[in-house]
Amino acid sequence: MENQVAAASGKLGVLVPGMGAVATTFIAGVEATKKGLAKPIGALTQMSNIRLGKRTENRYPKIKDFVPLASLEQIVFGGWDVYNENVYQAATNAKVLQQTQLDAIKAELEAITPMPAVFDREYVKNLDGQHIKAKDTKWNWALALMEDIKNFKEKNNCERLVMVWCASTEKYIETTDIHETIEAFEAAMQADDDRIAPSMIYAYAAIKMGVPFANGAPNLSCDIPALVDLAKELGVAIAGKDFKTGQTLMKTIVAPGLAARALGVNGWFSSNILGNRDGLVLDDPDNFKTKEVSKLSVLEEIFQPEDNPDLYGELYHKVRINYYPPHGDNKESWDNIDIFGWMGYPMQIKINFLCRDSILAAPIVLDLALFMDLAQRANMSGIQEWLSFYFKSPQTAEGLKPEHDIFKQLIKLQNTLRHMMGEDLITHLGLDYYQDLVESL
Amino acid sequence: MENQVAAASGKLGVLVPGMGAVATTFIAGVEATKKGLAKPIGALTQMSNIRLGKRTENRYPKIKDFVPLASLEQIVFGGWDVYNENVYQAATNAKVLQQTQLDAIKAELEAITPMPAVFDREYVKNLDGQHIKAKDTKWNWALALMEDIKNFKEKNNCERLVMVWCASTEKYIETTDIHETIEAFEAAMQADDDRIAPSMIYAYAAIKMGVPFANGAPNLSCDIPALVDLAKELGVAIAGKDFKTGQTLMKTIVAPGLAARALGVNGWFSSNILGNRDGLVLDDPDNFKTKEVSKLSVLEEIFQPEDNPDLYGELYHKVRINYYPPHGDNKESWDNIDIFGWMGYPMQIKINFLCRDSILAAPIVLDLALFMDLAQRANMSGIQEWLSFYFKSPQTAEGLKPEHDIFKQLIKLQNTLRHMMGEDLITHLGLDYYQDLVESL
Amino acid sequence: MENQVAAASGKLGVLVPGMGAVATTFIAGVEATKKGLAKPIGALTQMSNIRLGKRTENRYPKIKDFVPLASLEQIVFGGWDVYNENVYQAATNAKVLQQTQLDAIKAELEAITPMPAVFDREYVKNLDGQHIKAKDTKWNWALALMEDIKNFKEKNNCERLVMVWCASTEKYIETTDIHETIEAFEAAMQADDDRIAPSMIYAYAAIKMGVPFANGAPNLSCDIPALVDLAKELGVAIAGKDFKTGQTLMKTIVAPGLAARALGVNGWFSSNILGNRDGLVLDDPDNFKTKEVSKLSVLEEIFQPEDNPDLYGELYHKVRINYYPPHGDNKESWDNIDIFGWMGYPMQIKINFLCRDSILAAPIVLDLALFMDLAQRANMSGIQEWLSFYFKSPQTAEGLKPEHDIFKQLIKLQNTLRHMMGEDLITHLGLDYYQDLVESL
Amino acid sequence: MENQVAAASGKLGVLVPGMGAVATTFIAGVEATKKGLAKPIGALTQMSNIRLGKRTENRYPKIKDFVPLASLEQIVFGGWDVYNENVYQAATNAKVLQQTQLDAIKAELEAITPMPAVFDREYVKNLDGQHIKAKDTKWNWALALMEDIKNFKEKNNCERLVMVWCASTEKYIETTDIHETIEAFEAAMQADDDRIAPSMIYAYAAIKMGVPFANGAPNLSCDIPALVDLAKELGVAIAGKDFKTGQTLMKTIVAPGLAARALGVNGWFSSNILGNRDGLVLDDPDNFKTKEVSKLSVLEEIFQPEDNPDLYGELYHKVRINYYPPHGDNKESWDNIDIFGWMGYPMQIKINFLCRDSILAAPIVLDLALFMDLAQRANMSGIQEWLSFYFKSPQTAEGLKPEHDIFKQLIKLQNTLRHMMGEDLITHLGLDYYQDLVESL
Repeated sequence: MENQVAAASGKLGVLVPGMGAVATTFIAGVEATKKGLAKPIGALTQMSNIRLGKRTENRYPKIKDFVPLASLEQIVFGGWDVYNENVYQAATNAKVLQQTQLDAIKAELEAITPMPAVFDREYVKNLDGQHIKAKDTKWNWALALMEDIKNFKEKNNCERLVMVWCASTEKYIETTDIHETIEAFEAAMQADDDRIAPSMIYAYAAIKMGVPFANGAPNLSCDIPALVDLAKELGVAIAGKDFKTGQTLMKTIVAPGLAARALGVNGWFSSNILGNRDGLVLDDPDNFKTKEVSKLSVLEEIFQPEDNPDLYGELYHKVRINYYPPHGDNKESWDNIDIFGWMGYPMQIKINFLCRDSILAAPIVLDLALFMDLAQRANMSGIQEWLSFYFKSPQTAEGLKPEHDIFKQLIKLQNTLRHMMGEDLITHLGLDYYQDLVESL
Repeated sequence: MENQVAAASGKLGVLVPGMGAVATTFIAGVEATKKGLAKPIGALTQMSNIRLGKRTENRYPKIKDFVPLASLEQIVFGGWDVYNENVYQAATNAKVLQQTQLDAIKAELEAITPMPAVFDREYVKNLDGQHIKAKDTKWNWALALMEDIKNFKEKNNCERLVMVWCASTEKYIETTDIHETIEAFEAAMQADDDRIAPSMIYAYAAIKMGVPFANGAPNLSCDIPALVDLAKELGVAIAGKDFKTGQTLMKTIVAPGLAARALGVNGWFSSNILGNRDGLVLDDPDNFKTKEVSKLSVLEEIFQPEDNPDLYGELYHKVRINYYPPHGDNKESWDNIDIFGWMGYPMQIKINFLCRDSILAAPIVLDLALFMDLAQRANMSGIQEWLSFYFKSPQTAEGLKPEHDIFKQLIKLQNTLRHMMGEDLITHLGLDYYQDLVESL
Repeated sequence: MENQVAAASGKLGVLVPGMGAVATTFIAGVEATKKGLAKPIGALTQMSNIRLGKRTENRYPKIKDFVPLASLEQIVFGGWDVYNENVYQAATNAKVLQQTQLDAIKAELEAITPMPAVFDREYVKNLDGQHIKAKDTKWNWALALMEDIKNFKEKNNCERLVMVWCASTEKYIETTDIHETIEAFEAAMQADDDRIAPSMIYAYAAIKMGVPFANGAPNLSCDIPALVDLAKELGVAIAGKDFKTGQTLMKTIVAPGLAARALGVNGWFSSNILGNRDGLVLDDPDNFKTKEVSKLSVLEEIFQPEDNPDLYGELYHKVRINYYPPHGDNKESWDNIDIFGWMGYPMQIKINFLCRDSILAAPIVLDLALFMDLAQRANMSGIQEWLSFYFKSPQTAEGLKPEHDIFKQLIKLQNTLRHMMGEDLITHLGLDYYQDLVESL
Repeated sequence: MENQVAAASGKLGVLVPGMGAVATTFIAGVEATKKGLAKPIGALTQMSNIRLGKRTENRYPKIKDFVPLASLEQIVFGGWDVYNENVYQAATNAKVLQQTQLDAIKAELEAITPMPAVFDREYVKNLDGQHIKAKDTKWNWALALMEDIKNFKEKNNCERLVMVWCASTEKYIETTDIHETIEAFEAAMQADDDRIAPSMIYAYAAIKMGVPFANGAPNLSCDIPALVDLAKELGVAIAGKDFKTGQTLMKTIVAPGLAARALGVNGWFSSNILGNRDGLVLDDPDNFKTKEVSKLSVLEEIFQPEDNPDLYGELYHKVRINYYPPHGDNKESWDNIDIFGWMGYPMQIKINFLCRDSILAAPIVLDLALFMDLAQRANMSGIQEWLSFYFKSPQTAEGLKPEHDIFKQLIKLQNTLRHMMGEDLITHLGLDYYQDLVESL
């Protein structure tokens, strides 16, 4: 299969709806890395190794030396935002990175300015930007975005593009009939239907233009039958949803460990405090609902209470997000986990994660941009389940449960890369080291 | 291969050197479970399911319904201890379980009394028991233990036996020439050499009698070339060392998660407070050294700093165990983890685990007893690397690094069971759900 | 003054509206103490010493040996509840105390049964009891309560009575004109005005009957001008409001410490998880509002931001209570405190309090009962500010700010006792030990 | 008395033995404050108010407006250190303050250079500096220090001087006969006796020169009869020992709160991680012993177990300090407190303090310098017990127990200031607000 992956030649345009804290931290980090001023910690595409073959072969190449990825030097940045600030200004306001670091790449960041956004305040009440496209039907907005995409590609002389949604969480909605087929969906856009969220318009525009689309927020976006079918039909890679950072990252690390050991869990209380724009948006109950659904789902899939009623049948799971300005982007989570072991004896785990929202999200944006581009070149269209690793609420084929266990997600990702390049898959069996057996591991 | 696994017929004797808090909690839990008074939470052999075949096949049998394990009803308990208390008395003194629970199985527990132990206070300064075999050469002690084993088997009409070391951590020693070959080892026992630890004598006696031996403490015990060779030669299964509970359990859950995400770590401080006999023994620096070596090794293997110098090259790892009587068996750990992400920005994780030492260890004893017996019946002799899942410091073949990542350990364990029974191994690739490809998953 | 305090002769009836977890734990503890089965830990009236005179005099009597308090043997219990369970049944359902402890005093507890309660579901939506007085005007309910009080006193042959409100938090309301004068208040009761809360009816009945009234919940109750004036006029002691337990207790311990050292605070986030009936009631936003107001006020008074704008001018204070059934009565709080020191450098304090709601409240009920009775015998009528020590939101004279600093509250309490008994007040000056000065310390 | 306090005219020299992280942070903060670049948070002399008279008088002046203190502009800095770095270099190496802040006051800091130190490596094994006075008898070292003091005063045209010990903790020693009288002490210096610690030589030199001396470390220093008598005889103020920062600060805040409420405590485990020079020094067991004695004493005095055996008779207290380089000066403490309440039910408090060692210590140095100078001008010689507020292990008159409760320490400090200035002492009685009584509060 490796011969089928097209080379990563030419420029790769990375388009980002929502150029706030996450997007500007991502861009600043790539620019700083290119100048040797920082390291892209947290990005598997830049930092991680992958084991190939048997343990005794000692083959651990960097992922970027194993699969043909675009290099950081090939990336060109673009995007949309409701505030008319260039990336230097926006990064300064976000207060994530130290000013001295931003100043060292000021010229590069100032050169990047957002295009006017498609924005509907019905979907994000607590935001109020003016750098938006004039009021029009959603259909015309889609056309305008496609025009933006086309112009960006030409102007920047890009071979290929990818789009990664980094904007705010939209209010909670559910799939309805207008989201079922592409015909109904397009008709609804033309009718300016309330149920078409802005993020769906971006996703539609991307897919129509053959641009892979990854969704970093919990809103539906491309996770509706109409757009899944369209992506499949047009041969475009899509993935989502909701970057897995902070508390949910910890949760999908710790919960599989408890399940592995058959330890029971009867309560999991998760509290968050954060003070950035994301926290402000989530202070609105409608928007929190979207996030809550995304955050709550992970435990059920990992613990499978229906198959393990003695261990997880009584699990009470509660998630709270609290807007707390003193912390700014320095999100902090506190988890109390009530577990029980042998003969039912109770124990407790408390996890306090003093993290940084955008610092954890930025490398995910980079990995998704590069892996989505890789998938597209490998002709892997439709939902990219192997990128579940990056999402709180992985999008899957209908009828398949999402996999939330981060370790199974990682094996899936790594074995997909091995499979792409014609390497043996890893099963960790390893009996042959001990038994002189000949087996294909 | 499944046809090669002998059936689990007849009684299985479980012999335990060290009938303190862990062993008595294990025994009490099995007896309570048999009476329907408790559930054996934490034991994979009793509680866990295993996925077979493709996700869409929905095959998730209990492990105990998949592989032929001895049932709880078939188990007979025995062991040795330096205190002459029956299991009811010892469990009462250990203060792990509620008295009302012990009283409900008083008759069963009182019927189990320890045999006099082989004990050398040079190896455990802080203990002082009198129920010990008369002073003699180590060689004669080995013979006495073999006689004990033979008598126990006959008296209890057992088909098969297994031995699981649950006694205290011995002082730190390293492998020397007398541990290299079985000839040198036997000569040293006859010469009553100081370098032969009591736990080695138990391991030797077990292997010579064809009894699988698992080591729950960090002392070398069967992890010396002489005994590895002997086990291989006599076709006996061995495994070790040091039950993975509490803080190290959490560490081998969380560290793989950080490594998965390519997050850097520059400091990991681990503190423990516990007040049971184990804490008392570890208050002696010689004994703590043995435990410290076991606890420190896990991070290096998981993070592989030599391959990832930017992420883990500067990792400072410190482990402290503090004897704190107010907590009794309720061990508590506090971990501070200093991590860094995108562009090197620092973050912190603090984990406070309010656990119970014996409650976490007891199901491991049960699993090891049943899985070691299974391995023996499947003719898998020598080191059982697939049981690394249960150990802080897994014993491996010479030249192989131990695997500490609990999720790789779990896959290894599960794929070994699948392999034993002729089922397909799981790779989590899953592309066929999306691509209509025909692949061997 | 000491001669003016009437002796504590005869029986003291303690009447409790709300015989749930707190009240039954209080009663059970007193009964167990009387039988020598437990100690009344947490009650200053039973456990604490008080320093008298100079340090070098070494006079540290128990408080109960210093001031004339009723003894536990003199207490008779009574009360009202919306559920018709005797104290043994209610304590069993509350799951605060171990069943074996309750069984040891079963006869005593079963003998105490609640009188039908005055209840208005408008004020506590999440509760639904049937053991209530028939629908009537609030005025007639007041008369019925006075009849209850009179009958209880006669039937139990009590010398004196006190009443301590232990029932649920009512919904938030504010003082209006009908709460201003006793005439308006009585007219409103007769008109069955919505703004008369049940707790006010209990307070009115108590004061009219000459029974000291202490309010353990944050609702207004006796903290309205009409009832303050009535208490003063009739010479009855009153006090409130909201027992200071758990998180607020810790807050009024830690905040004075930070203020003492002139350390700045710019954020204080307080989260609570609890699963008892109190948590259920507070899950309703109207009731939480009452509690929130009570809990939020403490920091402002301690830090005095208007006088210390550089230190506390930017303080962001947020309190959350989360209903979390797995914990039952075992309330747990988590506080994150963002402080700053020298040159503005930020630091953080995180406090995790694994407490027990009723265990912390029960001794307060006892102390208040005995101290209110003492105050009444010492002819101290109206608001008892010296008992601020026990309240989250101390009731004070109009125009005076409540004192929240627990250490100033303690000095106030102790100096009041010293003053009552004619002892010198303590100032902690102590220069005379060093300077041979003659000063009244 | 206020008329007796001499005015704070002219320059005040502040001499600091040990110009490391604490001293340089102190000096930098004062310089930055003088330039309006920072605020001296944490210093009562600069930031705090004091209540005067009755609450209704609303008199809350700043302390610095109430008592005649030297102003920051009047201060001149000097000191000694074993490393020959000016304050700018030393502060840079200490990595406590941001480089941009240091650069803004570079000239001021570079102008301050340490004099060669009196140093004996026997007392601090883990340090190794070369900027030390030539080997000589301790007597001659004392003379050399007095010469340094005299020269500094003249050269800088100072009216008065104070000395505050900010150097490392010395190894543990106890008082012996040579520390009993000044004659024996001077003879021992002449004989170059091993039992004379360097810090004692500094204290001796200061007292002999009439310079008030405060000891910020736990070593004995001026806390020996010989120097106490000398200070009294020569009319010099002394105080000590061990700046109360971090964990012990929290302990003396929280413990009085538990004692106030008569809550029992049966275990208190305190762990610290820090990575600065102080941590390195305390990694040596001899030096840790000195610190441990200082840190352990506080609970006993606050809880008085002999008077409260039911509450504190079984208290197990353990303190650990762990050298952990990743944290640098950012000390972090973790406390587990096992408490029990009503009927003996157990509860737990866990406190995690992410603090900064030097940031907490620096304002104490400033307060002590200014208050010691005030005391000297007020003719208060010998031990200044009213400054116990600042010390982990307050020095007191023989036969008096030190007061550790930070709130009693604060009242003592404030009432001393009130007493100095002829204001009424505060007792917090406050009955008159309620009872129209005429009392002297």
